[in-house]
Amino acid sequence: MSEPAPAAAAPDIMGFSHERSLVVEWGHCDPAGIVFNPRFFEFFDWSTALLLEAATGVPKAAMLERFGLRGIPLVATEASFRRPARYGDLLTVRSTVVEVGRTSFVVRHEARLGEAVAVLGRERRVWAGPHPDDPAGLKALPIPADLARVLRGDAGAGPLPDSF
Amino acid sequence: MSEPAPAAAAPDIMGFSHERSLVVEWGHCDPAGIVFNPRFFEFFDWSTALLLEAATGVPKAAMLERFGLRGIPLVATEASFRRPARYGDLLTVRSTVVEVGRTSFVVRHEARLGEAVAVLGRERRVWAGPHPDDPAGLKALPIPADLARVLRGDAGAGPLPDSF
Amino acid sequence: MSEPAPAAAAPDIMGFSHERSLVVEWGHCDPAGIVFNPRFFEFFDWSTALLLEAATGVPKAAMLERFGLRGIPLVATEASFRRPARYGDLLTVRSTVVEVGRTSFVVRHEARLGEAVAVLGRERRVWAGPHPDDPAGLKALPIPADLARVLRGDAGAGPLPDSF
Amino acid sequence: MSEPAPAAAAPDIMGFSHERSLVVEWGHCDPAGIVFNPRFFEFFDWSTALLLEAATGVPKAAMLERFGLRGIPLVATEASFRRPARYGDLLTVRSTVVEVGRTSFVVRHEARLGEAVAVLGRERRVWAGPHPDDPAGLKALPIPADLARVLRGDAGAGPLPDSF
Repeated sequence: MSEPAPAAAAPDIMGFSHERSLVVEWGHCDPAGIVFNPRFFEFFDWSTALLLEAATGVPKAAMLERFGLRGIPLVATEASFRRPARYGDLLTVRSTVVEVGRTSFVVRHEARLGEAVAVLGRERRVWAGPHPDDPAGLKALPIPADLARVLRGDAGAGPLPDSF
Repeated sequence: MSEPAPAAAAPDIMGFSHERSLVVEWGHCDPAGIVFNPRFFEFFDWSTALLLEAATGVPKAAMLERFGLRGIPLVATEASFRRPARYGDLLTVRSTVVEVGRTSFVVRHEARLGEAVAVLGRERRVWAGPHPDDPAGLKALPIPADLARVLRGDAGAGPLPDSF
Repeated sequence: MSEPAPAAAAPDIMGFSHERSLVVEWGHCDPAGIVFNPRFFEFFDWSTALLLEAATGVPKAAMLERFGLRGIPLVATEASFRRPARYGDLLTVRSTVVEVGRTSFVVRHEARLGEAVAVLGRERRVWAGPHPDDPAGLKALPIPADLARVLRGDAGAGPLPDSF
Repeated sequence: MSEPAPAAAAPDIMGFSHERSLVVEWGHCDPAGIVFNPRFFEFFDWSTALLLEAATGVPKAAMLERFGLRGIPLVATEASFRRPARYGDLLTVRSTVVEVGRTSFVVRHEARLGEAVAVLGRERRVWAGPHPDDPAGLKALPIPADLARVLRGDAGAGPLPDSF
């Protein structure tokens, strides 16, 4: 977990990318009528899950099982909020892998309202299995080489082959 | 909203500071058994509210009304996750004002499990009233000088005087 | 707010109905790996908003404005949990108006996993505008007759006419 | 999971009871400025955890481990909302066991603002271990007799003895 924070990362690559849309719900918003900020981290968390699902070709649940993971926790994240989103707004979130390390990777999220950027996010995630000495703990694992290639965008637009 | 992100801020001051504790709840945690990361932004959001309550001497609801605010929204935030927290864990969150600008301020959050740092956060917030041209919109307002002095820690440890 | 709770309601009608699907996200689930129960009330809340949007032909934000509402709060709700849902599961939620009173209405929610019922919910909502004596308060208002007819299913399957 | 819903339960007993307070946070509230209803189920969920912690003398995490449980999931719940709560409000939640069955129990929650009742809730929970035929599944287990006695209030006000 001593890898650098998102801000200190190497120059960005343009790796695997995935886009999804969501409608801002009443319950996402606070008394000022705008999205309560922690909800964006919830949106981004699921966007990363969907990106990985698109990259691996299997849903997150199956992916965790296939790779022997307990989760893909955040180690660092940052976001800047440019424009408030309100309930009923359609948010489009584009998520792009911008760095792939040995045991972690960085995803950049751009949440837009139409053409306008609402929120920019960036997060470093670790590929984490159960800790050998502590069943409740987590341990960083190497990202499989074939998946790393897909995340870097070196394998075309498609997901991992079936044989992976 | 063009002020720099937290990472680009001036050298930190040690301004007004406030600490609170909370117990990690079952519902804060995800299937990996650790706090779901957006919850930390929820914890930090309320910690900032409590810091401002301690600094102004009035609760957030009354404070918004007194200062003609619609909210104190985030413009930028970042966090690094050092150590997972699990349900039942006691988290102590110390929040400290580390920069006070004309219309925004920066708070640093340190969430600890005992002596160990679990999560470090940092956020820039804007002092925001209703937008004159758009009743649903927000507009940055100057932070009152007396409050700025308290936030900078120049006014002793206590909250604003009653006459504020 | 003295109207009877859902369980005491009159025999159900089969009024306006709306169905939507959602994928259970990692962050919806708790350390037992199943959806944390309050999330179902969040799902149902938005399902009711979508039902009303389908019934009125306008999104919730515009609907609140058009009808002078501050919200459509719950007065009573109940749910039974038959089968756990896990992240990655596809939930289909069918929501049906089963009672329409003067100032409130009842919606029944059925969340299914494929053909199997996962959760059954039921809720009474009030048509609420700002309270005349208390700007922060809510006051029950009569449901407009044309909308009541649509909610009861007396107006065909479609939404309110444009002229509404 | 075929036990009756809360509304169909036997006459209430006045079993083990526990009270806690919480302040309504900004992020608990929706654009109408009142607590978003699913948050009450989150409050009640944790109130039940604290009640069980008080009854057993150990925190929920240790309790699950001691009794070989995977969780204590809801099978049915209901709530009525009498009075809106706003951010900054102090909510006092009294939770009382009102029925103890073989594998499930019912808790009644009363959330008050000062002397006024804000929300009444009621929930049936199951004592659930891992399913023998499905490691990801849950199976209802008999509530240990000593704990059932404490929950019924037959064992005095205190928690389980250390030797439990």
